Amino acid sequence: MQHFSKETIDALAIRYKNNLINSISGYKSANLIGTKGNAGNTNLAVFNSIVHLGSNPALLGFIFRPTTVPRHSYQNMKETGVFTINHISKDQIEDAHHTSAKYPENVSEFDQTNLKEEYKADCFAPFVKDAPVQIACRYVNDYLIKENDTLLVVGAVEHLFVKDEMLLEDGYVQLDKGEVVTVNGIDGYALPQLLARFPYARPKE
Amino acid sequence: MQHFSKETIDALAIRYKNNLINSISGYKSANLIGTKGNAGNTNLAVFNSIVHLGSNPALLGFIFRPTTVPRHSYQNMKETGVFTINHISKDQIEDAHHTSAKYPENVSEFDQTNLKEEYKADCFAPFVKDAPVQIACRYVNDYLIKENDTLLVVGAVEHLFVKDEMLLEDGYVQLDKGEVVTVNGIDGYALPQLLARFPYARPKE
Repeated sequence: MQHFSKETIDALAIRYKNNLINSISGYKSANLIGTKGNAGNTNLAVFNSIVHLGSNPALLGFIFRPTTVPRHSYQNMKETGVFTINHISKDQIEDAHHTSAKYPENVSEFDQTNLKEEYKADCFAPFVKDAPVQIACRYVNDYLIKENDTLLVVGAVEHLFVKDEMLLEDGYVQLDKGEVVTVNGIDGYALPQLLARFPYARPKE
Repeated sequence: MQHFSKETIDALAIRYKNNLINSISGYKSANLIGTKGNAGNTNLAVFNSIVHLGSNPALLGFIFRPTTVPRHSYQNMKETGVFTINHISKDQIEDAHHTSAKYPENVSEFDQTNLKEEYKADCFAPFVKDAPVQIACRYVNDYLIKENDTLLVVGAVEHLFVKDEMLLEDGYVQLDKGEVVTVNGIDGYALPQLLARFPYARPKE
């Protein structure tokens, strides 16, 4: 195996280090977060850090990079209180990745890609049309992680849309039936296939 | 598409709700966290919430469920200051899932599965032998998420081991070369295959 100590890692060239450290948390969720400012400007950005916080109530969290540079998504969700989370399917990966390009605030990523806005369920923020899973969230809170000035944003699920064929009888959403992708590192998109589901684990006798 | 409003979700039966809400954040990282208490008791537990917090310095975070029930991993990492994060490969999924069974504190999940302890790099906590990626972390901090009493734990990367064939020339760790799995929901393990890596996104002209 290749071994890197903290000292080795700290001394790596920045691009190598970014590739390396971004890969080692394992596979990441692949989502597009949609927002709209009160002035009507829409924003769409790819996120790989969405985590499950709890089911009852249904809460999700995600990490924002330091707010020292403009973050239009964050401004919009603070201003309006709502945002959408949209899963990325196999045929959307190129456009999804392009939303990470740094456009000025008055340019919408919806206009720069083939991704289309969709409005429903009285949600002020745009969903991504044809995304296999679409979630409308209310902005609830954020926590400053003082070790590197990132933010953990907490959102509450208000509306959930799931493609018919992905929803199983027991409530399970089988992501590979919607060709939902996952992210490896900052730039690699991978397509999973379900191997197995296991029953609730109980101690052996 | 199937539509669930907040009110519908709140009224769902608990098992259905757990399956549903645990699936909708997208694919999750699949990791085993290894710890050892000062008394020598080892603990191994599967986690699906590890997120990248930053590369410089290299910081990872993960979510702990409410601490109202005993959480041996958390006790051990607070007590000793160290823990390991180990990726789960395709042939380890059954044992990895079994670590979610509730054993008493004096029982080690290493003794109840075929997963073996490995010690190296002067790390007090055990690594999982044959895991394709192994990370030794120092416990740095935790943040209480007051909305549902979960904890975000922050860890700093001290040592990193990556299987030779997974590490590319530019520092990228290609997870599918190690048959690393991802998790769908709470009980589904899926195997991804890399589709594409994209260059750094720049605005279109």
